[in-house]
This record gives sequence, C-alpha cells and structure tokens, in this order.
Amino acid sequence: MTNKDARTPASTQNPTETSANGEAGKSVGWHKAYVEGSRPGLRVPVRQVHLTNGQSVTLYDTSGPYTDPLVDTDVRRGLAPLRENWIIARGDTEEYAGRPVRPEDDGIKHTSPRGGLRNLDAVFPGRPRLPRRGRAGRAVTQLAYARRGEITPEMEFVAVRENVSPEVVREEIAAGRAVLPANVNHPEIEPMIIGKRFLVKVNANIGNSAVTSSIEEEVEKMTWATRWGADTVMDLSTGRNIHTTREWVLRNSPVPIGTVPLYQALEKVDGRAEELTWEIYKDTVVEQAEQGVDYMTVHAGVRLAYVPLTANRKTGIVSRGGSIMAAWCLAHHKESFLYENFEELCEILAAYDVTYSLGDGLRPGSIADANDEAQFAELRTLGELNTVAKRFNVQTMIEGPGHVPMHKIKENIDLQQEICDEAPFYTLGPLTTDVAPAYDHITSGIGAAMIAWWGTAMLCYVTPKEHLGLPNRDDVKTGVITYKIAAHAADLAKGHPGAQEWDDALSDARFEFRWEDQFNLALDPDTARGFHDETLPAEPAKTAHFCSMCGPKFCSMKISQDIRREHGGSRDEIEEGMAQKSKEFAEAGNRVYLPIAD
Amino acid sequence: MTNKDARTPASTQNPTETSANGEAGKSVGWHKAYVEGSRPGLRVPVRQVHLTNGQSVTLYDTSGPYTDPLVDTDVRRGLAPLRENWIIARGDTEEYAGRPVRPEDDGIKHTSPRGGLRNLDAVFPGRPRLPRRGRAGRAVTQLAYARRGEITPEMEFVAVRENVSPEVVREEIAAGRAVLPANVNHPEIEPMIIGKRFLVKVNANIGNSAVTSSIEEEVEKMTWATRWGADTVMDLSTGRNIHTTREWVLRNSPVPIGTVPLYQALEKVDGRAEELTWEIYKDTVVEQAEQGVDYMTVHAGVRLAYVPLTANRKTGIVSRGGSIMAAWCLAHHKESFLYENFEELCEILAAYDVTYSLGDGLRPGSIADANDEAQFAELRTLGELNTVAKRFNVQTMIEGPGHVPMHKIKENIDLQQEICDEAPFYTLGPLTTDVAPAYDHITSGIGAAMIAWWGTAMLCYVTPKEHLGLPNRDDVKTGVITYKIAAHAADLAKGHPGAQEWDDALSDARFEFRWEDQFNLALDPDTARGFHDETLPAEPAKTAHFCSMCGPKFCSMKISQDIRREHGGSRDEIEEGMAQKSKEFAEAGNRVYLPIAD
Repeated sequence: MTNKDARTPASTQNPTETSANGEAGKSVGWHKAYVEGSRPGLRVPVRQVHLTNGQSVTLYDTSGPYTDPLVDTDVRRGLAPLRENWIIARGDTEEYAGRPVRPEDDGIKHTSPRGGLRNLDAVFPGRPRLPRRGRAGRAVTQLAYARRGEITPEMEFVAVRENVSPEVVREEIAAGRAVLPANVNHPEIEPMIIGKRFLVKVNANIGNSAVTSSIEEEVEKMTWATRWGADTVMDLSTGRNIHTTREWVLRNSPVPIGTVPLYQALEKVDGRAEELTWEIYKDTVVEQAEQGVDYMTVHAGVRLAYVPLTANRKTGIVSRGGSIMAAWCLAHHKESFLYENFEELCEILAAYDVTYSLGDGLRPGSIADANDEAQFAELRTLGELNTVAKRFNVQTMIEGPGHVPMHKIKENIDLQQEICDEAPFYTLGPLTTDVAPAYDHITSGIGAAMIAWWGTAMLCYVTPKEHLGLPNRDDVKTGVITYKIAAHAADLAKGHPGAQEWDDALSDARFEFRWEDQFNLALDPDTARGFHDETLPAEPAKTAHFCSMCGPKFCSMKISQDIRREHGGSRDEIEEGMAQKSKEFAEAGNRVYLPIAD
Repeated sequence: MTNKDARTPASTQNPTETSANGEAGKSVGWHKAYVEGSRPGLRVPVRQVHLTNGQSVTLYDTSGPYTDPLVDTDVRRGLAPLRENWIIARGDTEEYAGRPVRPEDDGIKHTSPRGGLRNLDAVFPGRPRLPRRGRAGRAVTQLAYARRGEITPEMEFVAVRENVSPEVVREEIAAGRAVLPANVNHPEIEPMIIGKRFLVKVNANIGNSAVTSSIEEEVEKMTWATRWGADTVMDLSTGRNIHTTREWVLRNSPVPIGTVPLYQALEKVDGRAEELTWEIYKDTVVEQAEQGVDYMTVHAGVRLAYVPLTANRKTGIVSRGGSIMAAWCLAHHKESFLYENFEELCEILAAYDVTYSLGDGLRPGSIADANDEAQFAELRTLGELNTVAKRFNVQTMIEGPGHVPMHKIKENIDLQQEICDEAPFYTLGPLTTDVAPAYDHITSGIGAAMIAWWGTAMLCYVTPKEHLGLPNRDDVKTGVITYKIAAHAADLAKGHPGAQEWDDALSDARFEFRWEDQFNLALDPDTARGFHDETLPAEPAKTAHFCSMCGPKFCSMKISQDIRREHGGSRDEIEEGMAQKSKEFAEAGNRVYLPIAD
C-alpha cells in the first residue's frame, strides 16, 4: 500500500517517522515509522520506503523494535510489554503463583549434585513476573470479545496494520474465519491476524535439536526471521534447554510464538512415546501457556482407528507429532489421550487465550500419499474438534499438508474450508514434487502460492535444508523470502486491496531506471543490490539509463522510453499522438500483410 | 520412469550401460547408459541411477556425450555429427557454397589494416563443412515428413526418449501440436520434442553482451546448463563475436540451439533500429540457418498498429526484439518488415528445417500490464502467422509472457491454444510478482509450474540475476534446477506416464533412510549431499536410521518404521494386523470421545 491512498481510519493517514534506518554503510532508503491508532500508545509499525522521486511507499513491517534506532533493545532484558496495559485494563485476568519451573522442563531428568535449575545453561535474566490467566468464569480470548461485539486494542491494531476497518477484523474473528494469536502472558507482541480476508501470513520454524544449535542461535534466528518478514515463529526445540530457550525467544519476540507441546512432553519421558500421559502433557501445556506461547499445535486428530490407514503408504507418518501419537495409540491400543481430553485442553487454552493450531499428524510425506484416506479421515476429525474448540471460545486454525502434486492442491483447501467452517488453514507448502532435496523451498513455494491464492491464511515456510538438516541463518532468510514471495503472489491473485501498489511502485522504478528505488523496494534489497553490482559495480551505474544485462546501446526499456520521448511528453500526449497515427493507419486499410486466403 | 516398466518398443527394454560415471571423489551413484532403437546407430542416452537396494531408476538425460567417459570430447573439434547419415540418407538436401562469412557478422564494421576475419578472436578450429539446404521443390522439415506419414529416425529417437510410440510422435508433429527442432546443419544434436503430450521442457538462455562475457564462458555455460537438465539453449549474444560464439556453441551442443536473429541484425547497423532493413535481416537469418540454428525467435507480431496500445503501460515494451521492431515501425511509420515479408521468411526457414518461435514482443513486463490489449492483439497476429508458417511446412511454437499474476495465467494458455491451433506454447515464467528482484527464478518458477500444468510445452528459465545482471555459472545452475522442478511438478500434475516413479523412488529411499540413494536421485545430488553433511558430516550418518533434523531418538520416520516393525513384516501383513485391531476397535463402538451433541 502506498501512502497516496486513503486509509480507512482517518486518523492513520500520516505515519509518524521516527528515525533514519538502514544497514551500516548502505544508503538510507527506508525508515521505521508508526501509524497512530485511536487510543494513546496504539502505534502500528510500518516500513516506509523513500523513493528518489520524492514519493514514498508504506509496507507492512514485522521486524519489531529492532529496526527502530530510537528503541534501545537488549535481549537480556526483553522487549517492552506493549500490550500489558490493555490486558490489565480489561480486568478479566489475574496474576497467580504459577507452576514451579522444574529441571526436567529443560530436559534434565535427574537432580545433579549442584541441584535443580542451577544446571541450566542460561536462565533468562530479565525481570521476573507472575503468570496471568483468566479469572474464574471470565472468557478472555479475542474470540470471546469479538463474539460479544467488543473491538479490543489488539483488533484495532491489526485493522490499522491491514488497512481495513476494525469492524471487519471483529467480524472475521467472531465468525472463526480469522485468529488473532495473543496469549495474555505474551504482552511483547505487535498484534497480527491470520485469516483469508487479510494479507497471507508466513511462519518460520526455529528450534534446537539433540544434534545441534544453541539458545543464542535460536533467539538470533527469531529476530533474523522477523527482520525478513516472518509473521509468526514456531519454536520446535527438542533438545536440552527447551524451557529456557523458549523463555528467551518469547521475551524477545515481537511476533506470536507457536510450539508443539508434545515435543517437550516427549523429552520429559526420555523419548519413549508409550510413557506419555495426559498429566505430563497437560502440565507441559500449562508450563508453556504461562510462559506466553501464543498458539500450540495439537495432534488430537490422530485417532487410533486411523493408524492402520497409513500402513500401505509410501512414507507412512511423517509428522513427528503424528508418529508419536500413533506410537502411543498402538502401544496402549487406546484412543489418543489428546482426543479423549480435548475439552479439558480447551479450558486450559481458553484461560490464557492460546490459539489452537490443530495439527495434521497424518499429512502426506510424499506425492504418492497425497489426499489419501488417512489424511482426509484426520481432517474430518479436525472439523469436529474445531467445533468443540469454538464452544470454549478458543481461537482455532487447522494445519494442512505436506507433499501434494499441483492438481490435488485445490481439493485440500476446499475440503478444509467446508469441513472446518472456514477456520483459517495453515499449510506446510505443499511440496509439489519429491525429487529436489536442497530446493524444497522452491518445490513447496509453488504449492504455497497456489494454496494461498485459493484461501490458505498462513504458510509455514520450508527452507532449502528440509529433509536434509537444520536451517542456518542463510537458510532461514531464503525460506522466509521464498514464502513472502508466495504470500504476496497470492495477495495479488486474490486482489487484496493495495497489494499491487507495491509491484507498481517497483515496476515504475524499473521503467524509469531508478536503481536505488528498485533495491529499496525489493523484498531483499541487499541481495538485489549485490547482484547488480557484480556486473556494474560503479556508483554511476545505479543512475544509468540502461541495465546491466544489455549494456548502454541495446536496452529495451531505453528504446521503449525513446519511443515515448519522440512521440510526446506525458503519457496522455503520447497516447494521443500514437492514436492519431494509428487512426490514419486504420483508415488506410489497417493491414499491410494480407493473411493467406487459400 | 524406472526400468521395471515395460517400454513401448520392445527393443528398448534394456539400456546398455557403457561405463561408470560421477564427479571426482564422489561415490559413483549413476551411469550414462543408452537405449537402443530399431535402427543401427540409434542410441538414446539415459541417466541410470543405481540404488543401494539393487534396483535402478532410468532418468531422461540432456547432458550429451560429456557425461560419457567412453566418449572423448574436445570443444575445439566439436561433437560427432550423430544425425549426419540420417540427413544424407533422406536425399532431399544438398550441400552448397553458402554465404561468405563477413567481418560484420562478428560486429566488426570496418576493415582493419589486418583485414577481415583475421580480426576475430577465436575462429572455430573444427573441420570446415559446407552448409546444406533442401533441394528445390523438396520439403525437408520434420513437419513435412510427419504430414506425409513418415517416421524419421529423429522421431523414433524422441519416441524412445519419451517412452511413447513413434506414431504418437508423428501424429503430434503432423498436427502442429509438437515441434522437433532439428536444423539440417546441426547434425550434432540428440533429437528432442516440444509438445504438451510430452515431458515439459526447459530452455536456458546464454549469451555475451556489450558489458561482459567471452566465447569460452558461453560454451561452458551451454554444457553446464545441459549438464543440469536444459533441453534447449538460446544464444542471445549481442556484443562482439556473435557469429563465432554461435559457431562454437553449435558445434559443441547436444541440444537444439535457438537465437533471436534480430539482435545480430541490429549489431550490423550499429544499434540503430531505424537502419534495419529486410535485406539485412534476411541475410542474418540465412547466415544463422547455415550455421545450424534450430529455432529462431521472430517478432513478426509487433505490428505498427499495436504500438500505441503500449503507451499507457506501466513498463512499456520490455522485449528487446519487440522494442526494436516498435522503434523501426514508428521511425518509418510503416508496417513491420517481418510481418510484410513473413512468407519469404517461411521459405528460408523451411529450406533448413529451422523452427519458428514466434516472439511475444509485446509481452507484459509488470503485473500491471498483464493480459492487456497490446499483448492479446499480438497473440491474435501470432495465430495468423502460425497458419501461414504451417502452409510452408515450417514447425512453429508460440512465445508467451512475462509478468502475470496467478489468477491471470490460465487465460494466457487457454487463449494461446485456441488462437494458435494448439501450437506448442513456450513461456518465460511467468513472474507472479514484481517485488522480488534477485529471486525472480522463484517468482517465475511458481508461474511456470502452473502454466506448464495447464499445457505449456516449454519453459524459458529465469535466473536469480533477471533484471539485475548477466547470469554466471551458479545462476545458470539455479535457474535450470528451478525450472526442472517446475517442469517436473507439471509432468506430475498432468499425470504424465512414468513421471511419478521418480518421486516414488526418492520417497522410498527417504522412508528407508537410504541417504546415498536420496542424493543420487535428487535433481542436484551435490547440493543435497552437501547440505546433509553440514549437519552430520560423518560417513556413518549416511546409513544412519535417523535424519539430521531430529537426531537419533526423535525421528518420525523411525517411529513410523517402528510401528510397521512391531505390527508385522511385510506391508500387507502389517495392514492385516492393523486392520484386525481396527476392526475390534470399530466393533467396540468406534469412538472414545463423543463429539458435542448440541
């Protein structure tokens, strides 16, 4: 969206610029700015790109306070609790002592001689605070507020951010067609919304594992992912220090954080799926809810009866959560404890406004397994559970595949929307072929763009390391950029208001050889500038009226501009002149070459 | 396609392995092999991947003799003329003196003191040969042969290559739904076919320019591109040494070579479009046809009357050929000399069996300009010209856009197929958004996969350097791999026979933790192996029964395998055991958790 356009709330027309920004040594092409909402302290961050022709373009910004040089951030202190006053002002939550943190929360099974928490590598040093939950009998979720007609500050925030009216936000949340993940214990986030009527969102996964990675790396990956446009981040840690890593990530994250509590629960039983119990799982959910996790993947749709449906599959069960639950079901020959205790789980999530992400534990892991009986049986159960969750006022989205060839993608979103009452679909890709390990950001970016066009609300990124290893910093960036492309391509195809103005601004800059503007408007300015400079490194080349592909005398853009120049001044004049010529031409018979009559 | 499957011609069931292959220091996972046709010397190259479980998978191979260690290749000598005997045996062509090569063919306008050709940097040293053309009154194109019911060796070659019957190949060519580009002066190629009933093909552009690049680099880029899967290569050189560069490329290319003769013609008039003439253009086409160019982009659809239609565009005319012709038309205020002389051009192309690629000179260069009046006006003219070309027995494909948002892509292929009598569509992307310079292989890979699914026969690759600079070796590889993904994803979506067997083989290897097989089956084995080794470099990790993402005790594939192991032996037994359990479960009421009634 450009700032030439009227925004719906009149008060938001003029973003306040706070400060210059840009990477060290680079020309300053954009600033962090804020659009003020109707109430004090409601300031929505935007990225304002300043063009060399004096215009500016305002883009959605997920990077948090880190890109505002006026804000002094410190990962050891955490971000300022932006939403704290809004939460307290509602008066429907209370602080309480909370569950004590235990060594096993960080994967330490046996008390060492030095005892308990002192074994942890790096306890978060920020201010201690008590957890908060809904008071007895109070419904504290954004869904509950929306249903009773309240527009919360969070809803207004996302309305400004999406350039729509707050009432549209409220309606979509109330109808269950959108979620606003915002745990009352995660006041640091800048609220965002996930729903098909809004901009398509992108999630980036991070997380250490038994094999590699550290706390510092995970926090760094989170800020790095949001720097490039991740709208939410899932912490999928499975190794040591799960609890502590999550604390650091949450306290420093400007975007909602998602988790899969089952991973941590499994760590607590030493990786033995059959030893999992509802009590251990529930305790883990409370632990994470108290920390502030905004949405949780719950694989409650993997029912005992569905497991045999996977036996003839090419790649069985590829979801980690799905296979853990399948293993548990088979070991005990019992129905899933997640399915059985789903109502109690709803009560817990409702108390903190944790959003469900109902996991697709039976998603296909290969082209051969796409859209099979196991997958769709689970989807129908997720539809059932979505209805239950809504009864408890728990916001809910539904996870989707996986590996799906292009011609089978649309059935996934159509069926999900039908079965789950249009609850937001949140898909992993899908990957459109299995044959390109090391390029699965691309195999899946294709499927992601298509399924988002058809209505998926959020895309879980896939990095080049998918199937091969854990993503490093470069992989995270590549994954996020690829998925921002897919999301924006879908916004365009859906005709999202304002989406095309970004493309138009960049194409104008391209046609007019405003190279710096092209770089600054690009999803990845650094790489675009770097590629240009490889061929034409000199500074004058960035204002040259030709491009580095064709050289000075052979450039189509230049010829096209020459045509305009020779035939008039403004575009209207040119068209008039050309139209006159064309008219003369038409009057003269309109063709020189006569098609064959034979 | 795997070698378990019956091939249509019985004689081709067992590819002959010639030799081991692989990169230095890497384990040998695949061999160059040949499938024999029905006549002596008809040997179709394939890539045979040997799996650690004793099976093998046969893949389409574009890499030419370079990957056969039994063939001694030398770029200074050129490749063996595989088709020469077939061409001579037909008896319908003749050698002739040919057009003398002139200094200006290589961009040298004025005779230097040292005179003429001696100014050239690197005249191709291979054996001199006379050019060949159709005898008077003889129709020597594959289209002409197909129409009169002849199955040429070239047609049989592609039938074996595509695993279809030769009659299908002949029918598709005769109907104009497919082209087999094979200039009588390019006997070095391994024939291939472009049509919607066959595997989707990928073209890679190379070419020096006034700014950068050398002959050696271009030859190296061509072999490099075919090594990764390019089915054809376009030489878009625009700087010095155009003629000589093309000679080196042609003599060393196992795939058809395409060009845009207009680029070289413009060089001959010092870059001044208005000085172009039909005579200069025609002479250039003959020059290139005698060298062996297999298909030529001709921008004959850019008619004078259409130029004003571009005046209000966001990005005007972005095709170089299109803008040159527009400039010429406006400078003279005359109809395009290409359109006016199209019949004579058909006669020339027919004499050498050069295939038309009717260029889309008015393709959109931005999302804003997609599917506009200018674009579709030109497409209707291309339909007209297609009809003319067919009358002269010239094989013809039609070029397509460009920049198109996802929701406007299908209209492009549907309209093209209708207007152009199902002639093969050959598209550049399309790019689905303008905002990601440096990632346009991805913005366009999305559109390419979709438009290929819907019927596009060949995709022109886009590299990460699009809009920014000339592609280097890495960019060429990234572009080719991205487009092979798009093409294969489309083959899957179209249900192309045998396409999924490749995915199945890789997914089987993945499920069974056969890491080396996964690498060797990957589109890019080197990068896949490298990514895996970054996390788990040790050799035992390549046979480990867990993957580098989750570590040894937390792997969904492993859990999924455990489920199978615990519940039986073979897949059938497992399913039976599970089904029994499931039946008991169903008989007991089939649900533990009762969905909410209200």
